Amino acid sequence: MKRSNRLVVLTDFFLENPRKHIQLPYFVELCGTTKSSISEDLDIIDTVLEEQGLGYLQRSTGAGGGVKYIPEFDVNRSELFVEELRQKLMDSNRILPGGYLYMSDLLGDPKIVREIGRVFASAFSKLDIDVVMTVATKGIPLAYAVASFLNVPVVIARRDPKVTEGSSVSINYVSGSSRKIQTMVLTKRSLKDGANVCIVDDFMKAGGTINGMISLLAEFNAHVKAIGVLAEADDEDEERVVTNYTSLVKISRVDMLRKTIEIQPGNIASL
Amino acid sequence: MKRSNRLVVLTDFFLENPRKHIQLPYFVELCGTTKSSISEDLDIIDTVLEEQGLGYLQRSTGAGGGVKYIPEFDVNRSELFVEELRQKLMDSNRILPGGYLYMSDLLGDPKIVREIGRVFASAFSKLDIDVVMTVATKGIPLAYAVASFLNVPVVIARRDPKVTEGSSVSINYVSGSSRKIQTMVLTKRSLKDGANVCIVDDFMKAGGTINGMISLLAEFNAHVKAIGVLAEADDEDEERVVTNYTSLVKISRVDMLRKTIEIQPGNIASL
Repeated sequence: MKRSNRLVVLTDFFLENPRKHIQLPYFVELCGTTKSSISEDLDIIDTVLEEQGLGYLQRSTGAGGGVKYIPEFDVNRSELFVEELRQKLMDSNRILPGGYLYMSDLLGDPKIVREIGRVFASAFSKLDIDVVMTVATKGIPLAYAVASFLNVPVVIARRDPKVTEGSSVSINYVSGSSRKIQTMVLTKRSLKDGANVCIVDDFMKAGGTINGMISLLAEFNAHVKAIGVLAEADDEDEERVVTNYTSLVKISRVDMLRKTIEIQPGNIASL
Repeated sequence: MKRSNRLVVLTDFFLENPRKHIQLPYFVELCGTTKSSISEDLDIIDTVLEEQGLGYLQRSTGAGGGVKYIPEFDVNRSELFVEELRQKLMDSNRILPGGYLYMSDLLGDPKIVREIGRVFASAFSKLDIDVVMTVATKGIPLAYAVASFLNVPVVIARRDPKVTEGSSVSINYVSGSSRKIQTMVLTKRSLKDGANVCIVDDFMKAGGTINGMISLLAEFNAHVKAIGVLAEADDEDEERVVTNYTSLVKISRVDMLRKTIEIQPGNIASL
Protein backbone atom coordinates (compact mmCIF):
# COMPACT_ATOMS: atom_id res chain seq x y z
CA MET A 1 0.00 0.00 0.00
CA LYS A 2 1.29 3.47 -0.85
CA ARG A 3 1.87 6.06 1.85
CA SER A 4 -1.08 8.17 0.75
CA ASN A 5 -3.42 5.19 0.97
CA ARG A 6 -1.94 4.10 4.28
CA LEU A 7 -2.56 7.53 5.78
CA VAL A 8 -6.28 7.28 4.96
CA VAL A 9 -6.52 3.72 6.32
CA LEU A 10 -4.62 4.54 9.52
CA THR A 11 -6.49 7.80 10.17
CA ASP A 12 -9.78 5.95 9.77
CA PHE A 13 -8.56 3.23 12.12
CA PHE A 14 -7.55 5.63 14.89
CA LEU A 15 -10.73 7.69 14.72
CA GLU A 16 -12.88 4.55 14.87
CA ASN A 17 -10.84 3.05 17.70
CA PRO A 18 -9.92 5.73 20.23
CA ARG A 19 -7.80 4.57 23.18
CA LYS A 20 -7.34 1.13 21.71
CA HIS A 21 -3.79 -0.13 22.17
CA ILE A 22 -2.39 -1.53 18.92
CA GLN A 23 0.96 -3.15 18.34
CA LEU A 24 2.82 -2.01 15.25
CA PRO A 25 2.95 -5.46 13.58
CA TYR A 26 -0.85 -5.22 13.20
CA PHE A 27 -0.49 -2.16 10.98
CA VAL A 28 2.53 -3.65 9.16
CA GLU A 29 0.30 -6.58 8.21
CA LEU A 30 -2.78 -4.43 7.48
CA CYS A 31 -0.89 -2.14 5.12
CA GLY A 32 1.63 -4.64 3.72
CA THR A 33 4.62 -2.45 4.47
CA THR A 34 7.58 -2.14 6.86
CA LYS A 35 7.69 -1.10 10.49
CA SER A 36 9.75 1.98 9.69
CA SER A 37 7.23 3.17 7.10
CA ILE A 38 4.41 2.75 9.60
CA SER A 39 6.47 4.69 12.13
CA GLU A 40 6.81 7.59 9.70
CA ASP A 41 3.06 7.45 8.96
CA LEU A 42 2.33 7.67 12.67
CA ASP A 43 4.61 10.72 12.95
CA ILE A 44 2.59 12.47 10.26
CA ILE A 45 -0.78 11.57 11.77
CA ASP A 46 0.34 12.55 15.26
CA THR A 47 1.52 15.96 14.03
CA VAL A 48 -1.71 16.69 12.17
CA LEU A 49 -3.94 15.56 15.05
CA GLU A 50 -2.06 17.81 17.46
CA GLU A 51 -2.11 20.75 15.03
CA GLN A 52 -5.86 20.35 14.59
CA GLY A 53 -6.43 20.15 18.35
CA LEU A 54 -7.91 16.65 18.04
CA GLY A 55 -5.60 14.78 20.39
CA TYR A 56 -2.43 12.78 19.88
CA LEU A 57 -0.95 9.34 19.37
CA GLN A 58 0.46 7.85 22.55
CA ARG A 59 3.36 5.57 21.68
CA SER A 60 5.15 3.05 23.85
CA THR A 61 8.26 1.01 23.06
CA GLY A 62 9.61 -2.33 24.22
CA ALA A 63 7.82 -5.68 24.37
CA GLY A 64 4.09 -5.17 23.98
CA GLY A 65 4.72 -1.59 22.86
CA GLY A 66 2.52 0.07 20.32
CA VAL A 67 0.29 3.05 19.74
CA LYS A 68 -3.01 4.42 21.01
CA TYR A 69 -5.00 7.42 19.80
CA ILE A 70 -5.99 9.70 22.69
CA PRO A 71 -8.82 11.97 21.51
CA GLU A 72 -8.36 15.16 23.44
CA PHE A 73 -9.81 18.48 22.35
CA ASP A 74 -7.43 21.30 23.15
CA VAL A 75 -8.81 23.88 25.56
CA ASN A 76 -9.54 26.37 22.77
CA ARG A 77 -11.73 23.96 20.86
CA SER A 78 -13.64 23.04 24.02
CA GLU A 79 -14.17 26.71 24.87
CA LEU A 80 -15.34 27.54 21.36
CA PHE A 81 -17.84 24.72 21.49
CA VAL A 82 -19.18 25.76 24.91
CA GLU A 83 -19.63 29.28 23.57
CA GLU A 84 -21.63 27.93 20.58
CA LEU A 85 -23.85 25.96 22.95
CA ARG A 86 -24.36 29.01 25.14
CA GLN A 87 -25.50 31.08 22.17
CA LYS A 88 -27.92 28.38 21.03
CA LEU A 89 -29.44 28.05 24.51
CA MET A 90 -30.11 31.77 24.89
CA ASP A 91 -32.85 31.67 22.24
CA SER A 92 -36.01 32.88 24.03
CA ASN A 93 -38.19 30.39 22.10
CA ARG A 94 -36.74 27.75 24.38
CA ILE A 95 -38.64 28.97 27.44
CA LEU A 96 -41.25 26.43 28.55
CA PRO A 97 -43.95 26.77 31.21
CA GLY A 98 -42.41 26.56 34.68
CA GLY A 99 -39.18 28.23 33.58
CA TYR A 100 -37.78 25.09 31.98
CA LEU A 101 -35.71 25.26 28.81
CA TYR A 102 -36.41 23.20 25.71
CA MET A 103 -33.15 21.40 24.88
CA SER A 104 -34.37 18.30 23.05
CA ASP A 105 -33.37 19.68 19.65
CA LEU A 106 -29.75 19.99 20.78
CA LEU A 107 -29.85 16.61 22.53
CA GLY A 108 -31.41 15.16 19.37
CA ASP A 109 -28.55 16.29 17.13
CA PRO A 110 -25.98 13.45 16.94
CA LYS A 111 -23.23 15.87 15.89
CA ILE A 112 -23.75 18.17 18.90
CA VAL A 113 -24.09 15.18 21.23
CA ARG A 114 -20.82 13.79 19.90
CA GLU A 115 -19.05 17.10 20.51
CA ILE A 116 -20.38 17.27 24.07
CA GLY A 117 -19.04 13.76 24.57
CA ARG A 118 -15.66 14.76 23.20
CA VAL A 119 -15.40 17.79 25.49
CA PHE A 120 -16.17 15.71 28.60
CA ALA A 121 -13.92 12.86 27.50
CA SER A 122 -11.10 15.38 27.00
CA ALA A 123 -11.63 16.82 30.48
CA PHE A 124 -11.72 13.33 32.05
CA SER A 125 -8.97 11.90 29.86
CA LYS A 126 -6.48 11.18 32.67
CA LEU A 127 -8.92 9.65 35.19
CA ASP A 128 -8.64 5.97 34.31
CA ILE A 129 -12.40 5.52 33.93
CA ASP A 130 -13.78 1.98 33.46
CA VAL A 131 -17.41 2.75 32.71
CA VAL A 132 -19.83 5.64 32.09
CA MET A 133 -23.13 5.63 33.99
CA THR A 134 -26.33 7.59 33.49
CA VAL A 135 -29.99 7.26 34.41
CA ALA A 136 -32.73 6.99 31.80
CA THR A 137 -33.65 8.91 29.68
CA LYS A 138 -32.11 12.17 28.53
CA GLY A 139 -28.57 11.53 29.63
CA ILE A 140 -28.30 8.35 27.56
CA PRO A 141 -27.01 9.81 24.27
CA LEU A 142 -24.51 11.98 26.16
CA ALA A 143 -23.27 8.96 28.13
CA TYR A 144 -22.64 7.02 24.90
CA ALA A 145 -20.83 9.95 23.35
CA VAL A 146 -18.49 10.27 26.34
CA ALA A 147 -17.99 6.50 26.49
CA SER A 148 -17.16 6.22 22.81
CA PHE A 149 -14.20 8.60 23.20
CA LEU A 150 -13.07 6.93 26.43
CA ASN A 151 -13.48 3.47 24.85
CA VAL A 152 -15.47 2.12 27.81
CA PRO A 153 -18.99 0.66 28.17
CA VAL A 154 -22.15 2.44 29.35
CA VAL A 155 -24.47 1.28 32.12
CA ILE A 156 -27.93 2.77 32.46
CA ALA A 157 -29.85 2.96 35.72
CA ARG A 158 -33.63 2.95 35.41
CA ARG A 159 -36.41 4.44 37.45
CA ASP A 160 -38.46 1.24 37.06
CA PRO A 161 -37.16 -2.32 37.22
CA LYS A 162 -37.58 -4.31 34.02
CA VAL A 163 -38.41 -7.97 34.00
CA THR A 164 -36.12 -8.61 31.04
CA GLU A 165 -32.93 -7.58 32.81
CA GLY A 166 -32.36 -10.15 35.55
CA SER A 167 -31.64 -9.44 39.22
CA SER A 168 -30.98 -5.86 40.19
CA VAL A 169 -30.03 -3.53 43.04
CA SER A 170 -32.37 -0.68 43.87
CA ILE A 171 -32.14 2.37 46.13
CA ASN A 172 -34.48 5.13 47.16
CA TYR A 173 -33.47 8.75 46.88
CA VAL A 174 -35.02 12.17 47.31
CA SER A 175 -35.44 14.19 44.16
CA GLY A 176 -34.13 17.67 44.92
CA SER A 177 -36.73 19.68 43.03
CA SER A 178 -39.93 17.73 43.77
CA ARG A 179 -38.91 16.43 47.21
CA LYS A 180 -40.45 13.11 46.30
CA ILE A 181 -38.98 9.76 47.26
CA GLN A 182 -37.98 7.97 44.06
CA THR A 183 -36.47 4.64 43.15
CA MET A 184 -33.44 3.94 40.98
CA VAL A 185 -32.44 0.47 39.79
CA LEU A 186 -29.31 -1.02 38.25
CA THR A 187 -29.02 -4.54 36.91
CA LYS A 188 -26.55 -6.55 38.98
CA ARG A 189 -24.55 -7.99 36.16
CA SER A 190 -24.19 -4.67 34.36
CA LEU A 191 -21.44 -3.36 36.68
CA LYS A 192 -18.40 -5.10 38.16
CA ASP A 193 -17.50 -4.53 41.79
CA GLY A 194 -15.08 -1.68 42.46
CA ALA A 195 -15.23 -0.02 39.03
CA ASN A 196 -14.06 3.53 38.31
CA VAL A 197 -17.18 5.33 37.12
CA CYS A 198 -17.93 8.56 35.31
CA ILE A 199 -21.51 9.79 35.85
CA VAL A 200 -23.08 11.75 32.98
CA ASP A 201 -26.42 13.56 32.85
CA ASP A 202 -28.07 16.30 30.84
CA PHE A 203 -29.25 18.56 33.64
CA MET A 204 -28.64 19.19 37.34
CA LYS A 205 -30.57 21.44 39.67
CA ALA A 206 -30.15 20.56 43.35
CA GLY A 207 -28.39 17.35 42.36
CA GLY A 208 -30.83 14.82 43.83
CA THR A 209 -30.76 12.51 40.83
CA ILE A 210 -26.98 12.53 40.64
CA ASN A 211 -26.83 11.90 44.36
CA GLY A 212 -29.13 8.92 43.77
CA MET A 213 -26.65 7.55 41.22
CA ILE A 214 -23.81 8.02 43.71
CA SER A 215 -25.76 6.04 46.36
CA LEU A 216 -26.54 3.32 43.86
CA LEU A 217 -22.88 3.10 42.86
CA ALA A 218 -21.89 2.73 46.51
CA GLU A 219 -23.84 -0.55 46.51
CA PHE A 220 -21.41 -1.75 43.83
CA ASN A 221 -18.33 -0.43 45.72
CA ALA A 222 -17.68 1.78 42.72
CA HIS A 223 -15.41 4.82 42.73
CA VAL A 224 -17.01 7.95 41.29
CA LYS A 225 -14.11 9.49 39.37
CA ALA A 226 -16.00 12.23 37.54
CA ILE A 227 -19.46 13.74 37.17
CA GLY A 228 -20.33 15.54 33.95
CA VAL A 229 -23.55 17.51 33.43
CA LEU A 230 -24.41 19.38 30.28
CA ALA A 231 -26.36 22.15 32.03
CA GLU A 232 -26.56 23.12 35.67
CA ALA A 233 -29.23 25.47 36.96
CA ASP A 234 -29.05 27.78 39.92
CA ASP A 235 -31.69 27.03 42.48
CA GLU A 236 -31.77 29.66 45.17
CA ASP A 237 -34.24 27.80 47.39
CA GLU A 238 -32.23 24.67 47.50
CA GLU A 239 -28.79 23.74 48.70
CA ARG A 240 -26.83 21.69 46.22
CA VAL A 241 -26.16 18.15 47.37
CA VAL A 242 -23.48 17.45 44.77
CA THR A 243 -20.44 19.68 44.66
CA ASN A 244 -17.69 17.95 42.74
CA TYR A 245 -18.93 18.03 39.14
CA THR A 246 -18.10 19.43 35.72
CA SER A 247 -20.72 21.42 33.80
CA LEU A 248 -20.55 22.83 30.27
CA VAL A 249 -23.11 25.60 30.76
CA LYS A 250 -24.91 27.21 33.67
CA ILE A 251 -28.49 28.43 33.36
CA SER A 252 -28.33 31.39 35.68
CA ARG A 253 -31.69 33.04 35.01
CA VAL A 254 -34.86 32.34 33.04
CA ASP A 255 -37.15 35.39 33.05
CA MET A 256 -40.61 34.23 31.98
CA LEU A 257 -41.96 37.78 31.91
CA ARG A 258 -39.30 39.45 29.79
CA LYS A 259 -38.64 36.24 27.86
CA THR A 260 -34.92 36.35 28.48
CA ILE A 261 -32.50 33.60 29.37
CA GLU A 262 -29.08 34.08 30.90
CA ILE A 263 -26.60 31.32 30.24
CA GLN A 264 -23.04 31.31 31.50
CA PRO A 265 -20.19 28.94 30.74
CA GLY A 266 -20.17 26.07 33.22
CA ASN A 267 -17.31 25.34 35.57
CA ILE A 268 -15.45 23.46 32.83
CA ALA A 269 -14.14 26.88 31.78
CA SER A 270 -12.22 27.18 35.04
CA LEU A 271 -10.68 23.72 35.04
CA MET B 1 -0.19 21.93 3.77
CA LYS B 2 1.55 18.89 2.30
CA ARG B 3 -0.45 16.10 0.66
CA SER B 4 0.24 13.67 3.49
CA ASN B 5 -1.07 16.13 6.06
CA ARG B 6 -4.05 17.02 3.89
CA LEU B 7 -5.03 13.36 3.61
CA VAL B 8 -5.21 13.07 7.40
CA VAL B 9 -7.20 16.32 7.74
CA LEU B 10 -9.64 15.42 4.96
CA THR B 11 -10.14 11.83 6.12
CA ASP B 12 -10.89 13.10 9.61
CA PHE B 13 -13.32 15.65 8.19
CA PHE B 14 -15.29 13.12 6.14
CA LEU B 15 -15.53 10.58 8.95
CA GLU B 16 -16.74 13.24 11.38
CA ASN B 17 -19.20 14.68 8.86
CA PRO B 18 -20.93 11.90 6.94
CA ARG B 19 -23.42 13.01 4.28
CA LYS B 20 -22.51 16.65 4.69
CA HIS B 21 -22.28 18.43 1.35
CA ILE B 22 -19.08 20.49 1.11
CA GLN B 23 -18.00 22.73 -1.74
CA LEU B 24 -14.39 22.37 -2.83
CA PRO B 25 -13.36 25.97 -2.01
CA TYR B 26 -13.91 25.12 1.67
CA PHE B 27 -11.17 22.50 1.50
CA VAL B 28 -8.94 24.73 -0.66
CA GLU B 29 -9.10 27.32 2.13
CA LEU B 30 -8.79 24.78 4.96
CA CYS B 31 -5.68 23.20 3.49
CA GLY B 32 -4.15 26.25 1.82
CA THR B 33 -3.77 24.54 -1.53
CA THR B 34 -5.25 24.43 -5.05
CA LYS B 35 -8.49 22.96 -6.29
CA SER B 36 -6.69 20.41 -8.44
CA SER B 37 -4.62 19.18 -5.49
CA ILE B 38 -7.78 18.73 -3.43
CA SER B 39 -9.34 16.87 -6.34
CA GLU B 40 -6.45 14.44 -6.39
CA ASP B 41 -6.68 14.02 -2.60
CA LEU B 42 -10.36 13.18 -2.95
CA ASP B 43 -9.54 10.56 -5.61
CA ILE B 44 -7.16 8.85 -3.19
CA ILE B 45 -9.59 8.95 -0.27
CA ASP B 46 -12.47 7.71 -2.41
CA THR B 47 -10.40 4.75 -3.66
CA VAL B 48 -9.30 3.74 -0.17
CA LEU B 49 -12.80 4.06 1.33
CA GLU B 50 -14.22 1.86 -1.42
CA GLU B 51 -11.41 -0.69 -1.12
CA GLN B 52 -11.98 -0.88 2.64
CA GLY B 53 -15.74 -1.29 2.19
CA LEU B 54 -16.42 1.90 4.15
CA GLY B 55 -18.43 3.81 1.57
CA TYR B 56 -17.51 6.37 -1.05
CA LEU B 57 -17.26 10.07 -1.86
CA GLN B 58 -20.21 11.33 -3.87
CA ARG B 59 -19.07 14.18 -6.09
CA SER B 60 -21.13 16.67 -8.02
CA THR B 61 -19.97 19.30 -10.50
CA GLY B 62 -21.32 22.65 -11.65
CA ALA B 63 -22.50 25.60 -9.54
CA GLY B 64 -22.96 24.48 -5.95
CA GLY B 65 -21.10 21.27 -6.74
CA GLY B 66 -18.94 19.58 -4.17
CA VAL B 67 -18.41 16.39 -2.31
CA LYS B 68 -20.19 14.28 0.30
CA TYR B 69 -19.01 11.17 2.13
CA ILE B 70 -21.61 8.39 2.00
CA PRO B 71 -20.79 5.85 4.71
CA GLU B 72 -21.97 2.54 3.32
CA PHE B 73 -20.68 -0.80 4.55
CA ASP B 74 -20.38 -3.25 1.71
CA VAL B 75 -22.57 -6.34 2.03
CA ASN B 76 -19.67 -8.53 3.15
CA ARG B 77 -18.80 -6.32 6.08
CA SER B 78 -22.43 -6.14 7.17
CA GLU B 79 -22.76 -9.94 6.96
CA LEU B 80 -19.57 -10.49 8.91
CA PHE B 81 -20.79 -8.18 11.63
CA VAL B 82 -24.21 -9.88 11.85
CA GLU B 83 -22.44 -13.22 12.19
CA GLU B 84 -20.32 -11.86 15.07
CA LEU B 85 -23.46 -10.63 16.80
CA ARG B 86 -25.15 -13.97 16.31
CA GLN B 87 -22.24 -15.79 17.93
CA LYS B 88 -22.23 -13.43 20.89
CA LEU B 89 -25.97 -13.84 21.45
CA MET B 90 -25.87 -17.63 21.48
CA ASP B 91 -24.02 -17.68 24.83
CA SER B 92 -26.31 -19.63 27.19
CA ASN B 93 -25.42 -17.33 30.12
CA ARG B 94 -27.71 -14.79 28.46
CA ILE B 95 -30.87 -16.71 29.30
CA LEU B 96 -33.02 -14.85 31.84
CA PRO B 97 -36.18 -15.99 33.63
CA GLY B 98 -39.13 -15.98 31.26
CA GLY B 99 -37.00 -16.90 28.26
CA TYR B 100 -35.67 -13.38 27.76
CA LEU B 101 -32.11 -12.76 26.61
CA TYR B 102 -29.67 -10.48 28.40
CA MET B 103 -28.39 -8.04 25.76
CA SER B 104 -27.48 -4.97 27.84
CA ASP B 105 -23.76 -5.71 27.63
CA LEU B 106 -23.89 -5.54 23.82
CA LEU B 107 -26.16 -2.48 23.88
CA GLY B 108 -23.79 -0.90 26.41
CA ASP B 109 -20.75 -1.21 24.16
CA PRO B 110 -20.43 2.02 22.13
CA LYS B 111 -18.33 0.28 19.48
CA ILE B 112 -20.92 -2.46 18.85
CA VAL B 113 -23.74 0.08 18.93
CA ARG B 114 -21.91 2.19 16.36
CA GLU B 115 -21.47 -0.82 14.07
CA ILE B 116 -25.17 -1.68 14.35
CA GLY B 117 -25.92 1.91 13.38
CA ARG B 118 -23.59 1.70 10.42
CA VAL B 119 -25.19 -1.51 9.15
CA PHE B 120 -28.71 -0.03 9.32
CA ALA B 121 -27.59 3.29 7.84
CA SER B 122 -25.98 1.39 4.97
CA ALA B 123 -29.18 -0.57 4.33
CA PHE B 124 -31.31 2.61 4.45
CA SER B 125 -28.80 4.77 2.60
CA LYS B 126 -30.98 5.54 -0.43
CA LEU B 127 -34.24 6.26 1.41
CA ASP B 128 -33.98 10.02 1.87
CA ILE B 129 -34.63 9.85 5.61
CA ASP B 130 -35.15 13.13 7.53
CA VAL B 131 -35.18 11.86 11.09
CA VAL B 132 -34.70 8.71 13.17
CA MET B 133 -37.33 7.89 15.80
CA THR B 134 -37.30 5.51 18.73
CA VAL B 135 -39.14 5.07 22.02
CA ALA B 136 -37.39 5.21 25.38
CA THR B 137 -35.26 3.45 26.57
CA LYS B 138 -33.23 0.68 25.00
CA GLY B 139 -33.50 1.77 21.40
CA ILE B 140 -32.01 5.20 22.13
CA PRO B 141 -28.31 4.42 21.60
CA LEU B 142 -29.11 2.50 18.41
CA ALA B 143 -31.19 5.39 17.09
CA TYR B 144 -28.30 7.82 17.63
CA ALA B 145 -25.87 5.48 15.94
CA VAL B 146 -28.07 5.17 12.85
CA ALA B 147 -28.74 8.92 12.83
CA SER B 148 -25.07 9.83 13.08
CA PHE B 149 -24.31 7.96 9.84
CA LEU B 150 -27.41 9.36 8.10
CA ASN B 151 -26.60 12.89 9.38
CA VAL B 152 -30.14 13.47 10.65
CA PRO B 153 -31.62 14.23 14.10
CA VAL B 154 -33.21 11.78 16.54
CA VAL B 155 -36.62 12.15 18.15
CA ILE B 156 -37.55 10.06 21.18
CA ALA B 157 -41.09 9.11 22.11
CA ARG B 158 -41.73 8.51 25.79
CA ARG B 159 -44.11 6.30 27.69
CA ASP B 160 -44.79 9.11 30.18
CA PRO B 161 -45.21 12.80 29.34
CA LYS B 162 -42.60 15.07 30.90
CA VAL B 163 -43.45 18.50 32.17
CA THR B 164 -40.17 19.91 30.89
CA GLU B 165 -40.88 19.23 27.24
CA GLY B 166 -43.79 21.48 26.27
CA SER B 167 -46.99 20.43 24.52
CA SER B 168 -47.15 16.92 23.15
CA VAL B 169 -49.22 14.45 21.16
CA SER B 170 -50.11 11.15 22.77
CA ILE B 171 -51.68 7.92 21.55
CA ASN B 172 -52.76 4.66 23.14
CA TYR B 173 -51.62 1.35 21.79
CA VAL B 174 -51.81 -2.32 22.68
CA SER B 175 -48.56 -3.94 23.66
CA GLY B 176 -48.38 -7.22 21.78
CA SER B 177 -46.83 -9.33 24.49
CA SER B 178 -48.67 -8.09 27.59
CA ARG B 179 -51.94 -7.12 25.86
CA LYS B 180 -52.01 -4.02 28.03
CA ILE B 181 -53.14 -0.63 26.80
CA GLN B 182 -50.17 1.69 26.93
CA THR B 183 -49.51 5.33 26.18
CA MET B 184 -46.82 6.84 23.98
CA VAL B 185 -46.04 10.54 23.81
CA LEU B 186 -44.06 12.74 21.43
CA THR B 187 -43.31 16.41 21.97
CA LYS B 188 -45.02 18.53 19.34
CA ARG B 189 -42.07 20.66 18.37
CA SER B 190 -39.71 17.72 18.08
CA LEU B 191 -41.01 16.61 14.66
CA LYS B 192 -41.98 18.65 11.58
CA ASP B 193 -45.13 17.77 9.68
CA GLY B 194 -44.66 15.30 6.81
CA ALA B 195 -41.15 14.11 7.67
CA ASN B 196 -39.57 10.94 6.27
CA VAL B 197 -38.91 8.80 9.33
CA CYS B 198 -36.81 5.76 10.11
CA ILE B 199 -37.98 3.86 13.21
CA VAL B 200 -35.29 2.06 15.21
CA ASP B 201 -35.67 -0.26 18.21
CA ASP B 202 -33.69 -2.95 19.96
CA PHE B 203 -36.26 -5.72 20.05
CA MET B 204 -39.53 -6.73 18.39
CA LYS B 205 -41.84 -9.56 19.28
CA ALA B 206 -45.39 -9.12 18.00
CA GLY B 207 -44.58 -5.56 17.02
CA GLY B 208 -47.03 -3.70 19.30
CA THR B 209 -44.54 -1.03 20.33
CA ILE B 210 -43.42 -0.38 16.77
CA ASN B 211 -47.04 -0.24 15.71
CA GLY B 212 -47.55 2.36 18.45
CA MET B 213 -44.76 4.46 16.96
CA ILE B 214 -46.35 4.16 13.51
CA SER B 215 -49.69 5.40 14.91
CA LEU B 216 -47.97 8.26 16.69
CA LEU B 217 -46.15 9.24 13.51
CA ALA B 218 -49.46 9.28 11.62
CA GLU B 219 -50.49 12.16 13.91
CA PHE B 220 -47.55 14.11 12.47
CA ASN B 221 -48.37 13.09 8.87
CA ALA B 222 -44.98 11.45 8.76
CA HIS B 223 -43.91 8.86 6.19
CA VAL B 224 -42.39 5.72 7.69
CA LYS B 225 -39.57 4.97 5.25
CA ALA B 226 -37.82 2.22 7.18
CA ILE B 227 -38.05 0.18 10.38
CA GLY B 228 -34.88 -1.30 11.84
CA VAL B 229 -34.84 -3.70 14.79
CA LEU B 230 -31.72 -5.26 16.22
CA ALA B 231 -33.39 -8.52 17.25
CA GLU B 232 -36.75 -9.98 16.33
CA ALA B 233 -38.24 -12.89 18.22
CA ASP B 234 -40.61 -15.51 16.93
CA ASP B 235 -43.85 -15.57 18.82
CA GLU B 236 -45.97 -18.51 17.81
CA ASP B 237 -49.03 -17.44 19.80
CA GLU B 238 -49.17 -14.02 18.31
CA GLU B 239 -49.63 -12.67 14.85
CA ARG B 240 -47.11 -10.04 13.94
CA VAL B 241 -48.67 -6.62 13.42
CA VAL B 242 -45.64 -5.13 11.67
CA THR B 243 -44.42 -6.77 8.50
CA ASN B 244 -42.20 -4.36 6.64
CA TYR B 245 -39.06 -4.16 8.77
CA THR B 246 -35.34 -4.94 8.72
CA SER B 247 -33.81 -7.07 11.47
CA LEU B 248 -30.16 -7.97 12.09
CA VAL B 249 -30.79 -11.17 14.03
CA LYS B 250 -33.72 -13.43 14.76
CA ILE B 251 -34.10 -15.20 18.09
CA SER B 252 -35.77 -18.38 16.92
CA ARG B 253 -35.68 -20.48 20.08
CA VAL B 254 -34.71 -20.09 23.73
CA ASP B 255 -34.76 -23.44 25.50
CA MET B 256 -34.80 -22.77 29.25
CA LEU B 257 -34.47 -26.46 30.07
CA ARG B 258 -31.50 -27.35 27.90
CA LYS B 259 -30.03 -23.85 28.22
CA THR B 260 -29.68 -23.41 24.50
CA ILE B 261 -30.40 -20.42 22.31
CA GLU B 262 -30.95 -20.49 18.58
CA ILE B 263 -30.19 -17.29 16.75
CA GLN B 264 -30.50 -16.83 13.01
CA PRO B 265 -29.47 -13.92 10.82
CA GLY B 266 -32.31 -11.42 10.50
CA ASN B 267 -33.98 -10.54 7.24
CA ILE B 268 -31.22 -8.01 6.45
CA ALA B 269 -29.31 -11.00 5.05
CA SER B 270 -31.89 -11.39 2.29
CA LEU B 271 -32.06 -7.72 1.26
